Amino acid sequence: MAVELTSTAFMMVCMALVQLMTPGLAFFYGGLVKDTSVLTMMMQSFVSMGVASIVWFLVGFSLCFGETMYFVGDPRTYLGLRGLNTNEALPDQTIPGLLFAGYQGMFAVITPALMTGAFADRFRFKPYLIFIAVWLVLVYAPWCHWVWGGGWLAQWGVWDFAGGIVVHVTAGFSALASLIVVGKREVSEEEAEDHDRPHNVPFVALGTALLWFGWFGFNAGSALATSGTAVGAAVNSEIAASVALFLWLIIDWIHRGRPGLVGLCVGSIAGLATVTPAAGFIQPWGAFILGCAAATLCYACCELRKKLGFDDALDVWGVHGMGGFIGTVLLGVLADPEECADVELAPPSCVNPGTATASMEQLGKQTCAALLAAVYSVLVTLVILKAIDLCVPLKPKHANLDFGEHGETAYHSPVRQYIQEPKKLSGLEATV
Amino acid sequence: MAVELTSTAFMMVCMALVQLMTPGLAFFYGGLVKDTSVLTMMMQSFVSMGVASIVWFLVGFSLCFGETMYFVGDPRTYLGLRGLNTNEALPDQTIPGLLFAGYQGMFAVITPALMTGAFADRFRFKPYLIFIAVWLVLVYAPWCHWVWGGGWLAQWGVWDFAGGIVVHVTAGFSALASLIVVGKREVSEEEAEDHDRPHNVPFVALGTALLWFGWFGFNAGSALATSGTAVGAAVNSEIAASVALFLWLIIDWIHRGRPGLVGLCVGSIAGLATVTPAAGFIQPWGAFILGCAAATLCYACCELRKKLGFDDALDVWGVHGMGGFIGTVLLGVLADPEECADVELAPPSCVNPGTATASMEQLGKQTCAALLAAVYSVLVTLVILKAIDLCVPLKPKHANLDFGEHGETAYHSPVRQYIQEPKKLSGLEATV
Amino acid sequence: MAVELTSTAFMMVCMALVQLMTPGLAFFYGGLVKDTSVLTMMMQSFVSMGVASIVWFLVGFSLCFGETMYFVGDPRTYLGLRGLNTNEALPDQTIPGLLFAGYQGMFAVITPALMTGAFADRFRFKPYLIFIAVWLVLVYAPWCHWVWGGGWLAQWGVWDFAGGIVVHVTAGFSALASLIVVGKREVSEEEAEDHDRPHNVPFVALGTALLWFGWFGFNAGSALATSGTAVGAAVNSEIAASVALFLWLIIDWIHRGRPGLVGLCVGSIAGLATVTPAAGFIQPWGAFILGCAAATLCYACCELRKKLGFDDALDVWGVHGMGGFIGTVLLGVLADPEECADVELAPPSCVNPGTATASMEQLGKQTCAALLAAVYSVLVTLVILKAIDLCVPLKPKHANLDFGEHGETAYHSPVRQYIQEPKKLSGLEATV
Repeated sequence: MAVELTSTAFMMVCMALVQLMTPGLAFFYGGLVKDTSVLTMMMQSFVSMGVASIVWFLVGFSLCFGETMYFVGDPRTYLGLRGLNTNEALPDQTIPGLLFAGYQGMFAVITPALMTGAFADRFRFKPYLIFIAVWLVLVYAPWCHWVWGGGWLAQWGVWDFAGGIVVHVTAGFSALASLIVVGKREVSEEEAEDHDRPHNVPFVALGTALLWFGWFGFNAGSALATSGTAVGAAVNSEIAASVALFLWLIIDWIHRGRPGLVGLCVGSIAGLATVTPAAGFIQPWGAFILGCAAATLCYACCELRKKLGFDDALDVWGVHGMGGFIGTVLLGVLADPEECADVELAPPSCVNPGTATASMEQLGKQTCAALLAAVYSVLVTLVILKAIDLCVPLKPKHANLDFGEHGETAYHSPVRQYIQEPKKLSGLEATV
Repeated sequence: MAVELTSTAFMMVCMALVQLMTPGLAFFYGGLVKDTSVLTMMMQSFVSMGVASIVWFLVGFSLCFGETMYFVGDPRTYLGLRGLNTNEALPDQTIPGLLFAGYQGMFAVITPALMTGAFADRFRFKPYLIFIAVWLVLVYAPWCHWVWGGGWLAQWGVWDFAGGIVVHVTAGFSALASLIVVGKREVSEEEAEDHDRPHNVPFVALGTALLWFGWFGFNAGSALATSGTAVGAAVNSEIAASVALFLWLIIDWIHRGRPGLVGLCVGSIAGLATVTPAAGFIQPWGAFILGCAAATLCYACCELRKKLGFDDALDVWGVHGMGGFIGTVLLGVLADPEECADVELAPPSCVNPGTATASMEQLGKQTCAALLAAVYSVLVTLVILKAIDLCVPLKPKHANLDFGEHGETAYHSPVRQYIQEPKKLSGLEATV
Repeated sequence: MAVELTSTAFMMVCMALVQLMTPGLAFFYGGLVKDTSVLTMMMQSFVSMGVASIVWFLVGFSLCFGETMYFVGDPRTYLGLRGLNTNEALPDQTIPGLLFAGYQGMFAVITPALMTGAFADRFRFKPYLIFIAVWLVLVYAPWCHWVWGGGWLAQWGVWDFAGGIVVHVTAGFSALASLIVVGKREVSEEEAEDHDRPHNVPFVALGTALLWFGWFGFNAGSALATSGTAVGAAVNSEIAASVALFLWLIIDWIHRGRPGLVGLCVGSIAGLATVTPAAGFIQPWGAFILGCAAATLCYACCELRKKLGFDDALDVWGVHGMGGFIGTVLLGVLADPEECADVELAPPSCVNPGTATASMEQLGKQTCAALLAAVYSVLVTLVILKAIDLCVPLKPKHANLDFGEHGETAYHSPVRQYIQEPKKLSGLEATV
């Protein structure tokens, strides 16, 4: 198809915006852990920009968007991105095929990285590299193909605007499964009180800022065009994030007794994850409702998770898995009303005239698809991790992961030096 | 009106850019304070992304841009964003109405957060939440309506391209007023020397970087279209920021004896605040002049403020209030020359042919409007804060605000741990 | 020429993206040095946003893109940006002339800052200011004019898509030359083991994230239009960066025994620098090859540099100088095949039909130009620095540069305070 230039310009920017989300995630997670695991945590996100990108450009894009072959796309369709080009669009699209592959590649980069928050401190680097490559092929690719690549769920009529199922449910429930394999963190009695304290809250805020900013590209860009749908997705994302931020803060305030910055940040991310599957299909008041749902239900899930004793260190399941799940299900009742299906008569407030309209039948389909994705992700991830664990043990032996795994420490400052050699202290005094 | 797609694409990106400015501000201010108030400071910015957004989407947009009712817009015009849509523009615009509301919402989020630098360490969280909601309705909304929403100042011919009056004068002078209510920080003798030292200068630089980056969306986006005016605004912003950065550095160097990074950062922000009201109406040499004015006059105002004994902790008044004031006034003489008013004969260098041309009369109008905004902001903010203080005391009682107010500490590191338990030190040695 | 709006919208965003790269560089370099030089390092980048911008807007743009006069552009052509405007494009372009000047100005800002990593801890602030202003005029401007401004190398047929020669070779080899003048860092025996340890690895990662993000604007924007070429440049940049990130990590892992985050970050920057001259002229598999070349050859160059005893603190020569060099040379054989020159018959995968096609002759031209740029940069920078050193000594006398040069320290925390006054420690305990 012919390429439309305003959409091409917009989507190049969206590609860059989503690219920034993975480092954003690295800071979000890195700030939440101890300062002896921060590099381990950040590397798991950053290295996805290498591993997942390479898998994507070689076979991943074909597996997701190639011609259907058995249950995924035929990897030969666009092997090594061949057959895609810069001046012609894929069918039903208006941006260059190569740009679509590049943009979707960013989703494949961030999705495996989302899981890393769950198994913080309990996953060695080498098996992690194997894990994300295999996971992309066996979990991400089929779901992406089924929902977005013209597969059977797309044909059945399941909607997922920007990745509620494809990104958040797969990553969130796979994260849950990983906990069954890696178990709980070993925490000495002395550390018990402290081991959940974020080592750098401003980094958590920085990560939130970059994620939120990039999420405009993630959600609005999922319209794949400069269109009213993109505009609706952008504004709806902002509304859901804001409402969830504030409501989570209030709930946390009542529950913990103090309003905290970490909770505020987690709340906004929950709002964004929840609105993701729906962003371009709903009206602003629907985004408001999703924001409220994110804050109340995801908060409850995080509390439930603690009660059940799962050591999901950074609440990946509660925030991403359940956020994506809730948004996917509620989309069935929050999507534009039936009148919007008639483009001629559509009332002016339709965000996405003609595509997605709410119904009980749709609610059922959405729920089935989300449940299936959850079950599939748990089971397949369990098998993958058990298999890898047999060959390359997953769990590290060091207490100081950064140094043990990566030979680096995140921070190096004279303070530490001076503690070690107190006689230098006066020297510091003299210079400063 | 019909929607123009290049403008829609551009404005969606600008919306995201302005969204990033509020976290940028959180780092700018957070880095400047003590490491026991950093979270308090950052939360005051981050929470505005929740509170101000919600106020905006419910009634704020209508108050600002609804049909005039008494002295503000009628809150019912776009209550809960109804009546706005994704495929049709408001009168005289070429972007979807919903996008305009979303973009302007970002301005409503950052403006109250600008004030927080003034009353650092002296404002509790609960009254702060009430304050920004009320302030948006009683100070921001009327000025936004009068200047941008077709109100009486717009009709009288006052110009404010991207928020010199609406954003910077209102926030800067309200900040000044807040000091009358909250008073000075209590500083023990021991801390006297130190209490103004930023705890993390790189964070100040990070905040500056994000603010500067986002300001492209703030200033160029205020053209509300992909146009020559937007291009002029983008380049003029860069020029003013660069010139102010360098000149402030030099002045600071001469005055303090050393060229510092904090001064350089503050200088660039002063340049950006000063060029804001004028960015799309002036030629590049005008931006150069505004950069020089920002560095010299805002620097002088900050020094004056110290002499007068106002404890405006992070110089919100000197940088934002006076920056916006100076830019607004000078616009009267720096706007495009009269020839530009004739679009047919306009010389090629006109940034904004036909809209704003310099004159003594205009200088008078600009000065009156800026003065009125300053006086209004001081008086109304005084009343608001006094009233809140009666119900919910503004001033905290804790020395360690982060822990006292929010139950969190920004940083948590083994160093601190090891200081507390020196016997562990050798353990650290062994692992690292 | 007439202005095309989709390109104008895209290029305004690209201008903002490249603007963000200079602060990104400040964090990349700032994180890598000691915590007593971090502000010194960051300021050298930030101040370029003042000095280089001012030089650019006054005469720099004319020197680069003005009518040829002797060996550079005539500085009077666009003196103070006169003659450029917001609604008309320069010949052969489709974006407003003023926007082109603003966009290119961002390149002039970051290029001198690239050099600062080489002479970390050995360059005083005052002579640095003089150095970058002179260097822009005597090194950057002529090369920019020759390669991009219609000068003799452009006419001879040398290609440089986004700055392999103009940005990376000039900065990288000038950095090498600077080492001859400033010599090695003096390192006491006690510090020997530690003096190369980054003080803040997360800041290195933050810098990498901002650089990578901004590089989309740098490379895709160098198409100066919303076009297939821009799309190709964006996707190729992502591929090269990802491949280099991963391969560098693996090489480093084998060589050092541990996979580190710093290496991963440096690898991705090497990939981006290497793909820069080629991004819009090659197909995705070419970007894959450049990524591999970047990781292997730049890594080897960094090792070689150590063996030769050059104290290039942050490997500016190995990463940027040699990255740009390698990309420029390999472009001669990786550019689109000859069929692409015939736009009618061009196969669909051509990234840049009709402009650049590979040949042995081209390989020769590219090599000659890169070599000449390297030699020129070394010699002219040597002369500039020797001359400045005679008037204003380059090397500082303080060990603590941040405090000595700038009167600031990057971090100020109670921890340090409490070390100095241990009796306060219990006070901390009580509050926290």
